[in-house]
Amino acid sequence: MSQRFQEQISDIVSTIVASYKENAFPVASASLPNRDSIIESIHMLRELLFPGYFGKQNLIIDTIGYHVGDLLIKIHEKLHEQIGYALKHQAIKNGEVTLDADKKADEIIYAFLRKIPEIRDTLIMDVQAAFDGDPAAGDKDEIIFSYPGILAVSIHRLAHELYLLSVPLIPRIMAEYAHIITGIDIHPGATIGKYFFIDHGTGVVIGETSTIGNNVKIYQGVTLGALSTRGGQNLRGAKRHPTLEDEVTVYSGASILGGDTVIGKGVVIGSNAFITKSVPNGTKVSVKNPELLFKGHSPEDVKEEFVLDWVI
Amino acid sequence: MSQRFQEQISDIVSTIVASYKENAFPVASASLPNRDSIIESIHMLRELLFPGYFGKQNLIIDTIGYHVGDLLIKIHEKLHEQIGYALKHQAIKNGEVTLDADKKADEIIYAFLRKIPEIRDTLIMDVQAAFDGDPAAGDKDEIIFSYPGILAVSIHRLAHELYLLSVPLIPRIMAEYAHIITGIDIHPGATIGKYFFIDHGTGVVIGETSTIGNNVKIYQGVTLGALSTRGGQNLRGAKRHPTLEDEVTVYSGASILGGDTVIGKGVVIGSNAFITKSVPNGTKVSVKNPELLFKGHSPEDVKEEFVLDWVI
Amino acid sequence: MSQRFQEQISDIVSTIVASYKENAFPVASASLPNRDSIIESIHMLRELLFPGYFGKQNLIIDTIGYHVGDLLIKIHEKLHEQIGYALKHQAIKNGEVTLDADKKADEIIYAFLRKIPEIRDTLIMDVQAAFDGDPAAGDKDEIIFSYPGILAVSIHRLAHELYLLSVPLIPRIMAEYAHIITGIDIHPGATIGKYFFIDHGTGVVIGETSTIGNNVKIYQGVTLGALSTRGGQNLRGAKRHPTLEDEVTVYSGASILGGDTVIGKGVVIGSNAFITKSVPNGTKVSVKNPELLFKGHSPEDVKEEFVLDWVI
Repeated sequence: MSQRFQEQISDIVSTIVASYKENAFPVASASLPNRDSIIESIHMLRELLFPGYFGKQNLIIDTIGYHVGDLLIKIHEKLHEQIGYALKHQAIKNGEVTLDADKKADEIIYAFLRKIPEIRDTLIMDVQAAFDGDPAAGDKDEIIFSYPGILAVSIHRLAHELYLLSVPLIPRIMAEYAHIITGIDIHPGATIGKYFFIDHGTGVVIGETSTIGNNVKIYQGVTLGALSTRGGQNLRGAKRHPTLEDEVTVYSGASILGGDTVIGKGVVIGSNAFITKSVPNGTKVSVKNPELLFKGHSPEDVKEEFVLDWVI
Repeated sequence: MSQRFQEQISDIVSTIVASYKENAFPVASASLPNRDSIIESIHMLRELLFPGYFGKQNLIIDTIGYHVGDLLIKIHEKLHEQIGYALKHQAIKNGEVTLDADKKADEIIYAFLRKIPEIRDTLIMDVQAAFDGDPAAGDKDEIIFSYPGILAVSIHRLAHELYLLSVPLIPRIMAEYAHIITGIDIHPGATIGKYFFIDHGTGVVIGETSTIGNNVKIYQGVTLGALSTRGGQNLRGAKRHPTLEDEVTVYSGASILGGDTVIGKGVVIGSNAFITKSVPNGTKVSVKNPELLFKGHSPEDVKEEFVLDWVI
Repeated sequence: MSQRFQEQISDIVSTIVASYKENAFPVASASLPNRDSIIESIHMLRELLFPGYFGKQNLIIDTIGYHVGDLLIKIHEKLHEQIGYALKHQAIKNGEVTLDADKKADEIIYAFLRKIPEIRDTLIMDVQAAFDGDPAAGDKDEIIFSYPGILAVSIHRLAHELYLLSVPLIPRIMAEYAHIITGIDIHPGATIGKYFFIDHGTGVVIGETSTIGNNVKIYQGVTLGALSTRGGQNLRGAKRHPTLEDEVTVYSGASILGGDTVIGKGVVIGSNAFITKSVPNGTKVSVKNPELLFKGHSPEDVKEEFVLDWVI
């Protein structure tokens, strides 16, 4: 190690350490949860939800209990520890000193794991919805293995249970992991009914206080968003995102905004619609698409300029 | 291990196992392909397509045959096994008992590997198209290393060959892996010509029965989709997605929908256009953009309210 | 190994090797940088920027210097090597034989590492902007751990410094890694001010010559793009992308195009606006949304057909 190198590095180390001391060194770093451990938990939970597809294969139904037991003990260990960290970290930040984080983590983890069969039943309906709704689906195995919509909704249904159990940090870390993987951004607070299908999915945003009924189908680029977030943290907790009732379909690129906006039962929202008011049951909303201008490159091909408008 | 822990876990195990027995335990789990192995194959194939860029570096052209041989044996081993699983799994589901999966996997894998030089030649043209079409490209190495469009199209060209060879499950797993990585969703059934470039790419959707000619360029957020999928599985196999002839350019956010929609040679489709009918050769289609409303915050800056419309 | 297998494989190896010799075997393969090493550097740099959140946890401020020193030595080793490769590769391609790549890499790496405290200070402001601007943010830890906007901008601020130091290849590899992870595509050449927030982010594109002031907020699907790239490589270096002055907000799906387009201070651009001309300070631009057509499924629910237009 040359002297120049030593001097340079040691000088840079000092300025970096000084910057830590000055600014935003994490509060209570000793109890921050670990993002990698949380992601490992997600993978193990996914194995539990779809056994034989992910992780260990060649499972036999008669002896699968041993595999499930083994997996559950690992999930318990990892998640219990992370939930404990998240609770302690929150308590320290809020100045609560009396919390029994271990006991509370215990209660949460059992309540969460007891939900697995129900989450699984719902996800099987989601897979069915994907199969029924997508002519490009070869079979349900293909959907379980590869559909980003199913992956995002699987992680959402897990994260949402932890959100309901008031676990700090971890639900959002899970949700944003799903977002990063799939391009589908579902806040763990969103309430989503059964038989839900997101097709293609890239660019979908479903905000924290969205409520979605049963048998709903949405496509890539759909936003269920807030009308304005200029209130910032003052809006925290308010219903800012829309409600979709049962059997709603929302085609690609549509935006539905606002906490008072209710999309009634059976409504179909066309591609690229921009909706900020409620729509009554059974309505079909389509965009009168902007005029298209056509210019021919050569006069023999098409008339020099003509305008054609259409409605889907 | 505390008694409470044992009781809780064993109780949860029972309910989960019961839920497996009741519902959707994978059919023929013993021969499901393994997603991780398929992804490993993709990485090895990528090394074969762009030697020196990914995987082993510092290759010397005179001795590269040894490296290629080694790599091919590994790819063969892994893909042959996975194709065998996929074929067996399909046969069991379809009640075919006489399939010689091993022999069929053999035929498929050789036919597939023989296509590698051709796929490589086409991809080199795709890299050239990216270089010619993107002023932000420093050089072709940058494109090979980092362009998501090239990564997505590389995986597509591999997956499409397996799709043409009627391999079940694996082509879609490959395609959705590319989708997850790049945000570009190309169904392995889509037919794509030479010298193809997807710029930026996030949000692009190219449906199963799309046909794309040579020298085509598309941008982020473009959908080549179906007009309606309400028919669900009844539409399976029908031509549902558009045809783009040679030298077509489609700018960001445009949607082109429908199996009867043909975009003629040399057509340029402007940003955000929504196209559901054929467009003749050489036409330039632009959207008459929706009126914009301008409001000044302070009267001295701009007139209180004025409307300006423009066409690109 | 069966004879048939040997014959098939050796035949395929020959055709692949022949295709390498003919076409695009990488120039100067001995000094190509390694993408995996660059990605490892990013992860270590992220640990340096947000200590305690990623990588090693349970850090104590009094002894953190040892951890930082250790990390810096590893980052130096890896990045120095990769920068050296990138410089040599470029020199060989350009026919420069006199380059002292080692010495130049030395200068670059020190200049880069000295920027870390400043980058960190800026990122802490970005985290604050996210917290202030997003009612769904539980706390700043959640933002650091999980917001894709923060991840993308963290990598951008690192890659941009290397871009300014004229490092070939590596800045773009870093930027496209961020793109792949987050769906946010920021060219390393883009200049971005302080207190910057990208919400949701999927589909955002920020072109090479974009300039963004302080206190700017943009949403998912926003493009800061070029008006035309038909000039291809001839346009290289020209200002092709817009300028956003301080305190600009751009809502989801809006496109702002062209190197002469300046969005003035305090401007708000509404969702889906398509902007190709400058907008004066303090203006609020909203789209007069396309007419929506409503059709009731049953006459008792809604009038058979009615049209409603609205402006946000």
